[in-house]
Amino acid sequence: MKKTRIGIVGYGNLGKGVEAGLKHSPDLELTGIFTRRQPDQLETLSPAYSIDKLIDFKNSIDVLILCGGSQKDIPLQAPELAQTFNTVDTYDNHNEIPVHFERLDKVAKENKTVAVLSTGWDPGLFSLNRLIAEAIMPKGETYTFWGPGLSQGHSDAVRRVKGVKNAAQYTVPKKERVDKVKDKQPIHYNKKEAHKRVVYLVLEEGADESKVKEAIISMPDYFQGYETKITILDQDTLDKDHQGMPHGGTVIRQGKTTDENTAIYQFGLDLDSNPEFTAAVTIAYARAAARLAKERQYGAKTVFDIAPGYLSPESPEDLRRKLL
Amino acid sequence: MKKTRIGIVGYGNLGKGVEAGLKHSPDLELTGIFTRRQPDQLETLSPAYSIDKLIDFKNSIDVLILCGGSQKDIPLQAPELAQTFNTVDTYDNHNEIPVHFERLDKVAKENKTVAVLSTGWDPGLFSLNRLIAEAIMPKGETYTFWGPGLSQGHSDAVRRVKGVKNAAQYTVPKKERVDKVKDKQPIHYNKKEAHKRVVYLVLEEGADESKVKEAIISMPDYFQGYETKITILDQDTLDKDHQGMPHGGTVIRQGKTTDENTAIYQFGLDLDSNPEFTAAVTIAYARAAARLAKERQYGAKTVFDIAPGYLSPESPEDLRRKLL
Ligand SMILES: NC(=O)c1ccc[n+]([C@@H]2O[C@H](COP(=O)([O-])OP(=O)(O)OC[C@H]3O[C@@H](n4cnc5c(N)ncnc54)[C@H](OP(=O)(O)O)[C@@H]3O)[C@@H](O)[C@H]2O)c1
Ligand SMILES: NC(=O)c1ccc[n+]([C@@H]2O[C@H](COP(=O)([O-])OP(=O)(O)OC[C@H]3O[C@@H](n4cnc5c(N)ncnc54)[C@H](OP(=O)(O)O)[C@@H]3O)[C@@H](O)[C@H]2O)c1
Repeated sequence: MKKTRIGIVGYGNLGKGVEAGLKHSPDLELTGIFTRRQPDQLETLSPAYSIDKLIDFKNSIDVLILCGGSQKDIPLQAPELAQTFNTVDTYDNHNEIPVHFERLDKVAKENKTVAVLSTGWDPGLFSLNRLIAEAIMPKGETYTFWGPGLSQGHSDAVRRVKGVKNAAQYTVPKKERVDKVKDKQPIHYNKKEAHKRVVYLVLEEGADESKVKEAIISMPDYFQGYETKITILDQDTLDKDHQGMPHGGTVIRQGKTTDENTAIYQFGLDLDSNPEFTAAVTIAYARAAARLAKERQYGAKTVFDIAPGYLSPESPEDLRRKLL
Repeated sequence: MKKTRIGIVGYGNLGKGVEAGLKHSPDLELTGIFTRRQPDQLETLSPAYSIDKLIDFKNSIDVLILCGGSQKDIPLQAPELAQTFNTVDTYDNHNEIPVHFERLDKVAKENKTVAVLSTGWDPGLFSLNRLIAEAIMPKGETYTFWGPGLSQGHSDAVRRVKGVKNAAQYTVPKKERVDKVKDKQPIHYNKKEAHKRVVYLVLEEGADESKVKEAIISMPDYFQGYETKITILDQDTLDKDHQGMPHGGTVIRQGKTTDENTAIYQFGLDLDSNPEFTAAVTIAYARAAARLAKERQYGAKTVFDIAPGYLSPESPEDLRRKLL
């Protein structure tokens, strides 16, 4: 069988994860990595090209996996690239997803391409489970807990505090809340009360520890109102213990099947590497995108629109025999 | 909007669950319950008819939910009814699913109907999660643990033992095994070692307790080789504490996103009522079946073939806005 040819656009954490993850899928092959930077200055394991050359690969790439940032890159790159290529992205700006969808749908339908958006785990697999759980049990309450996991945005915010040399910030769900939900008990949920923030940081020489701590816990949006725990360490320890990018979380629905009976529906992830797992999800959806394009099912698609069988390289017969 | 009209075939635990569950879905309405028994002798909450009258409802039912037993009823009823109606079943004889599929697919395509088979939770949602987890992480190992849950088959087997008046048998996964898998540790898994059997029974008057216990633990297939715990109680306690039909379980994949990094993908259910939850799943797939039939996507379908969005009564726009 002919392999599905993949292009990676953007070589950050996610792009590296896709490059590594493709090795586990013999039905897919990597044509190249496309970057806005000087390609020869990236340490890639596979051929890298300037993004300006992408158009030359029009006929040798079946699906592009877009690995740019959701903030600035995807809103520009995705609609442009969907004019020429089938695409998959992990766009995670939840509020803007409807706009992103409409924009991509128009471009993709006009140009007969498939644009799969907002894959990954949240949005992505978490969304899928929220939908399935609610569709099955219309009566009930869905809770999402994030972490324990490294938050890039919060780590950056701590690093910007005067007196901080380096930092890692973890979002940690409060175990007693999660346990209560799993135990079918009612809880009052809001994001702030349900999570705590755990900070590890290295001080600049001569920095005032108590001022640094005060600056962190009073930071609006990021830390204010959260239970926050700050630990000071030296750079070596930070390097040794806090270099990974673990993440995960849990989606739980407490549903009522009747007034008397409750059902707990639970989906959880515990990831050593957030970008590698996110990449693994995009790879499966890239396989789906290639198939949808072959079937001429053009337009924008989300995880809600794609039958799960499309994600697997196995035949429907084999899937029924082995996994149903 | 016109409601989707549902018929229930067979009024056992599952049929009752569907009748109750339909109340939570205002986009669906129950046309009637169809039984092989005398309809006026069933205590239904809704109109009940003899199954012989089903054909008269050809034009007033959009989807039949088949609630017969997998052992004897579904293999006969499903292919016959799929000639005339769109159907959903929860057929759970895993080894025979491929044959059941082929048979239904032929009938459904010839007669332009949709036949959704083997919904529920195992097969059903568990299968869906096995597929998604493996498609995303081709390298890894998937574990299924069943329970804690009441096993009808094992309870029946205990009740057939000489000296036993009444009994309930629960299948319970061994916590330390489940925890090890969640903790990313390797385990040697086989179904017998991973589960224990917990029996509550009422003795007949004058029965020999030790002989009864011996007969149970030495029963081949059912108990032999399993860690089994037997508790003797009186009928009142059994009636009070063991009348429900709880069940559930967990599907866990330990996947490797790279050689260094592991991801735990976990899906779990904890159900006060197995038949009510199974019913809730069939109801969502009945909604999907009606839509597929409208789109003329005829033939047999499994949970692998149906885009998740079809399960929900909400519009794609609303789903993207609220749940993605
Ligand atoms: N849906 C989900 O569950 C989920 C989960 C995780 C992440 N995400 C999304 O994935 C997006 C990408 O995440 P990421 O961790 O890969 O972001 P990142 O490492 O910051 O990379 C983003 C882009 O920045 C450029 N870049 C990377 N390293 C650079 C460097 N040293 N100097 C200059 N430019 C550099 C790359 O583009 P060029 O190669 O073109 O320069 C890259 O594509 C995030 O914005 C997030 O929204 C989604
Ligand atoms: N996929 C999954 O996850 C899943 C989970 C749970 C169950 N299931 C499947 O669902 C099937 C049905 O389960 P169930 O618990 O509803 O079985 P059940 O209570 O034994 O009912 C099966 C059929 O037996 C008849 N019946 C019920 N009560 C009766 C009575 N008192 N006397 C005579 N006949 C009676 C009914 O047909 P009539 O009304 O026509 O007589 C009914 O449709 C099981 O076989 C199982 O395979 C699947």
